[in-house]
Amino acid sequence: MILEKIKKPNDIHRIPLADFPLLADEIRDFLIQSVSKTGGHLASNLGVVEMTLALHNVLNFPEDKLIWDVGHQAYTHKILTGRKEQFTNLRQEGGLSGFPKRNESDCDSFDAGHSSNSISAGLGYVRARDILGQKYTVVSVIGDGALTGGMAYEALNNAADLKTNFIIIINDNNMSISRNVGGMSTYLSALRTAEAYTGMKLGVTKTLKKIPRVGEAVVDTMRKTKSSIKQLFIPGMLFENMGLTYLGPVDGHNMRQMMKLFNEAKRVEGPVVVHVLTKKGRGYAPASNHPARFHGTGPFDIKTGRVLEKKKSPTYTDVFAKKIVSLGEKNKKLAAITAAMPDGTGLVEFGKRFPDRFFDVGIAEEHAVTFAAGLALGGMIPVVAIYSSFLQRAVDQMLHDVCMQNLHVIFAIDRAGLVGADGETHQGCFDLSYLSMMPNMKVLAPKNAAELEQMLEYAVDCEGPVAIRYPRGCAYQGLTDYRAPVITGKSEIIAKGKEIAVLGVGSMLSDCEKVCQGLREDGYDPTLVNVRFVKPLDVELLDCLAGDHRLFVTVEENVKSGGYGEHVAAYMEACHPESRVLTASVWDHFVPQGKVESLRAKIGLGVEDIRESIENSEVLKKK
Amino acid sequence: MILEKIKKPNDIHRIPLADFPLLADEIRDFLIQSVSKTGGHLASNLGVVEMTLALHNVLNFPEDKLIWDVGHQAYTHKILTGRKEQFTNLRQEGGLSGFPKRNESDCDSFDAGHSSNSISAGLGYVRARDILGQKYTVVSVIGDGALTGGMAYEALNNAADLKTNFIIIINDNNMSISRNVGGMSTYLSALRTAEAYTGMKLGVTKTLKKIPRVGEAVVDTMRKTKSSIKQLFIPGMLFENMGLTYLGPVDGHNMRQMMKLFNEAKRVEGPVVVHVLTKKGRGYAPASNHPARFHGTGPFDIKTGRVLEKKKSPTYTDVFAKKIVSLGEKNKKLAAITAAMPDGTGLVEFGKRFPDRFFDVGIAEEHAVTFAAGLALGGMIPVVAIYSSFLQRAVDQMLHDVCMQNLHVIFAIDRAGLVGADGETHQGCFDLSYLSMMPNMKVLAPKNAAELEQMLEYAVDCEGPVAIRYPRGCAYQGLTDYRAPVITGKSEIIAKGKEIAVLGVGSMLSDCEKVCQGLREDGYDPTLVNVRFVKPLDVELLDCLAGDHRLFVTVEENVKSGGYGEHVAAYMEACHPESRVLTASVWDHFVPQGKVESLRAKIGLGVEDIRESIENSEVLKKK
Repeated sequence: MILEKIKKPNDIHRIPLADFPLLADEIRDFLIQSVSKTGGHLASNLGVVEMTLALHNVLNFPEDKLIWDVGHQAYTHKILTGRKEQFTNLRQEGGLSGFPKRNESDCDSFDAGHSSNSISAGLGYVRARDILGQKYTVVSVIGDGALTGGMAYEALNNAADLKTNFIIIINDNNMSISRNVGGMSTYLSALRTAEAYTGMKLGVTKTLKKIPRVGEAVVDTMRKTKSSIKQLFIPGMLFENMGLTYLGPVDGHNMRQMMKLFNEAKRVEGPVVVHVLTKKGRGYAPASNHPARFHGTGPFDIKTGRVLEKKKSPTYTDVFAKKIVSLGEKNKKLAAITAAMPDGTGLVEFGKRFPDRFFDVGIAEEHAVTFAAGLALGGMIPVVAIYSSFLQRAVDQMLHDVCMQNLHVIFAIDRAGLVGADGETHQGCFDLSYLSMMPNMKVLAPKNAAELEQMLEYAVDCEGPVAIRYPRGCAYQGLTDYRAPVITGKSEIIAKGKEIAVLGVGSMLSDCEKVCQGLREDGYDPTLVNVRFVKPLDVELLDCLAGDHRLFVTVEENVKSGGYGEHVAAYMEACHPESRVLTASVWDHFVPQGKVESLRAKIGLGVEDIRESIENSEVLKKK
Repeated sequence: MILEKIKKPNDIHRIPLADFPLLADEIRDFLIQSVSKTGGHLASNLGVVEMTLALHNVLNFPEDKLIWDVGHQAYTHKILTGRKEQFTNLRQEGGLSGFPKRNESDCDSFDAGHSSNSISAGLGYVRARDILGQKYTVVSVIGDGALTGGMAYEALNNAADLKTNFIIIINDNNMSISRNVGGMSTYLSALRTAEAYTGMKLGVTKTLKKIPRVGEAVVDTMRKTKSSIKQLFIPGMLFENMGLTYLGPVDGHNMRQMMKLFNEAKRVEGPVVVHVLTKKGRGYAPASNHPARFHGTGPFDIKTGRVLEKKKSPTYTDVFAKKIVSLGEKNKKLAAITAAMPDGTGLVEFGKRFPDRFFDVGIAEEHAVTFAAGLALGGMIPVVAIYSSFLQRAVDQMLHDVCMQNLHVIFAIDRAGLVGADGETHQGCFDLSYLSMMPNMKVLAPKNAAELEQMLEYAVDCEGPVAIRYPRGCAYQGLTDYRAPVITGKSEIIAKGKEIAVLGVGSMLSDCEKVCQGLREDGYDPTLVNVRFVKPLDVELLDCLAGDHRLFVTVEENVKSGGYGEHVAAYMEACHPESRVLTASVWDHFVPQGKVESLRAKIGLGVEDIRESIENSEVLKKK
């Protein structure tokens, strides 16, 4: 095994080039074996094995900086920097992260998770390096999908006047997580078959030159016309037009070619784009045939590619997916928007059924939201389906372009609350805060599968902006007897007791039930409320409960600052000073990877913690 | 006066083309006269008089949709849609907005204020139009400055596969508010002188064709090579490469040429970029010579161009500008970043003194923040200076790229709180909420000019992310005797009394003083606290004050949800239930334009309102 010789960063420099193909095979085998047991991102990692090897061949760690965009493709990088043994704990609590993490290795230069930011971070390193008179190489790797994000363009635009070396690698697999979209994608596809241009360049110039007088004159005229001629015959005109040198395209599975090009790129004085063509899932047929399925996967059977875990009950995404189709059938004005995640958000079927009303805008959350604002003004009812942590990208657009004009846009916010194995970058723990601060916004969270459906119906029928946030994973199927109609700003009482009122937000309802069960066993008679509306606050209910309740307990999967608990505490403080409020929320730290249940306990949101805090409350001890 | 014939939308259709130049002159005169009295945006509006006339000539209102990016250039549009008489109240409370507003006229299609979103909104209208089988024309006007914003690119990318008409006008004056920057800007400049290409196209083809056999063959070969030839000779290759038709450039002060091109653009089936060259401040020498000075102006003397109001005491921006230079002198690692607003944020002098450490990244707040993260990782201490309402664009970058890695990035947040005449879109009323929810973030607000300096010193010396928010306008020069050192999470006691504690955040300190003065006159002995740190909360002080204070009054220029008041209320609720908290904050509506003082009274933040609420508090009546 050549792979066994790789124990620490730069060990690869001692591997003969002739052994690289074998090493690539070994790494690929290792990845398939390892991820088949732990689950993780597979297709993207199989696509960049050779590219990562070629990069490590021309770079020195930790001096040089390699910045991965999104970062779910850094497994080979982790292996080459001495972290192979930790793959048994990949994405588990306390184990190896699925993303680059600076606290894991000094060879990780930037913590990644969200898309399209690697060029910005890399440019920061470059400028700092130059100011401080240092000499290292900076490489940002960005996928063609991430290149649909506006931030990437902002950074390219800003890099244009750089006079020193900065290598930007476009890892072009013609995919985001699903098929890539948009003008840039079409353009890159054209470049993929662009070797012809380079041939033509020589051919035409030669041909022209052969023609006495006239031909020479034309070539000369063309030469003098600034850089236009260069652009004519060179692929990558778009990048060259922006002031960036373009190299490629190069076969991302041919290591010799890549190393040659990377070394050439290192000699360019200024920003240089290297266009590398890779194939997602390369070398493992199930993954290369179904790259979206193998983007992120649970443990699977290597032979068949089938997931080992049985499909459990439907997820909230499944519930949304089905309901949005039926709503789309009834209402021809309903449109749906995804930012490059039709699979993840559950919009595939809607897209098939109503292709004219379905929009995949690319990894472009900002545009997605304002585009929805335009759709609403044009008479449609747009549903923007984006994960909670990615929607952080579009806070201004929600506030300035939707809420300010009080437009009827529906936000379907998936992966709200703790998401588990993806860790810090993907936890959806801030949405209740950033949504609540927006005037005109209605903020909802369903207690179970059926209520998500009810809320979607409500959202289509109501006016103004409305956000529904629901968690990752199986939709709760309990509490199905409670189906009060959804009315703006009204919570739902699940069980009416006295003294203690437990107010649970969406995903926490099932745990709140357990808390109440525990309290009952200990002789209390708690009221259980399904909050439903984080905004507007159901003050009428609070007023009413204040009569015979002394302790109000809010439970939410969101940070405390700006969350439901603070809203209730501030209200009760002002209006019912005789009552006490206990707020259970996500702590004021980023929440690492791990199983959701275990994480909740860790951050003070466990069932037992909540029950104990309640029973220890001073107010219950007074008579 | 031809202008007198324009009373309502589409009246311009009855003006003979021959009279358009005269009409343009009259409008320009009107704008100069009117803005010289009321103040407002001038340079941008003078630049688009002819373009707006040409557009109104080829469009019908309100059927057709005209979407202005940022919107500070829509004065001529307002005049042509019957709002000329309202210019006497421009930007005043209850008066005409300086930006497009749908509630002002059905000829305004999208409320604007922030940058780079007009293409997204326009594309939304276009898609809705097509789905609903309607027929109107949609035009988005975007400046070359706004084109540095990533959102604009996301929208262009998404527009590429559109099969129906959508007109995108690039209003290219080679400026943002200040000089424009970046690769796109350089590219547009190249196009400005690109008429040569079009000539060359014909010339070369002709010349080649003349050559028997060989020439024809070359032309044929070129033709066959997909669209490469078309791109070779046509300006706008970058846009064409992205799948957009490019027309232009055209002289933005030649109405006949523009109308011809706009009509041509209407016939294109698909997205079409029309490149219009304009001059900011055109027709008024002081404005065309100093467009940044005349971007937004107070009332001025037409003859000299001088502002009428005397320069008052220094603004917070002035204080920041001076201090950041002196800090930059002492610390060679200090770098400063602006998103296209070196003047507005006070970084001009820093840029002159330390050009290597100064970065104008374009209208690109997202990139600015992550670029700063990269700078910090590379060993620099970056200061990102962005207005409060524009920083909303970079919430995810602050959270995900800065706070998650706990990087030492300083956010200098100008225009925090109410800004006055710019209205809804520019009020900085959300920053305390979106900053407080971020783990690791420190959130500061200075009480006066000297404290801003102290806080900047503190920010340079501390670790991790730190945000300092300060308001528009003159820096408060009172309370100068209070100069306690700035210590993380510590507030400052200005006056120690009993029973009532008034806790003022930054810009509200001077008003809080007045409130306390009033209370003293009424026989109370209030404590006055300068909050300094909204995060971390000074719980030690709250614990201490709880001993002999029954009423805590928080005063902040921020919405209540997620603001300082809620943090205090939740804390006191939990730990000091015997005390009451009164929260004075910005209401849960968008705050319209008007004078800051008057707006404060309107939204419940007036000195008298606060004093009355305090004196009416139940807790003071109990003994």
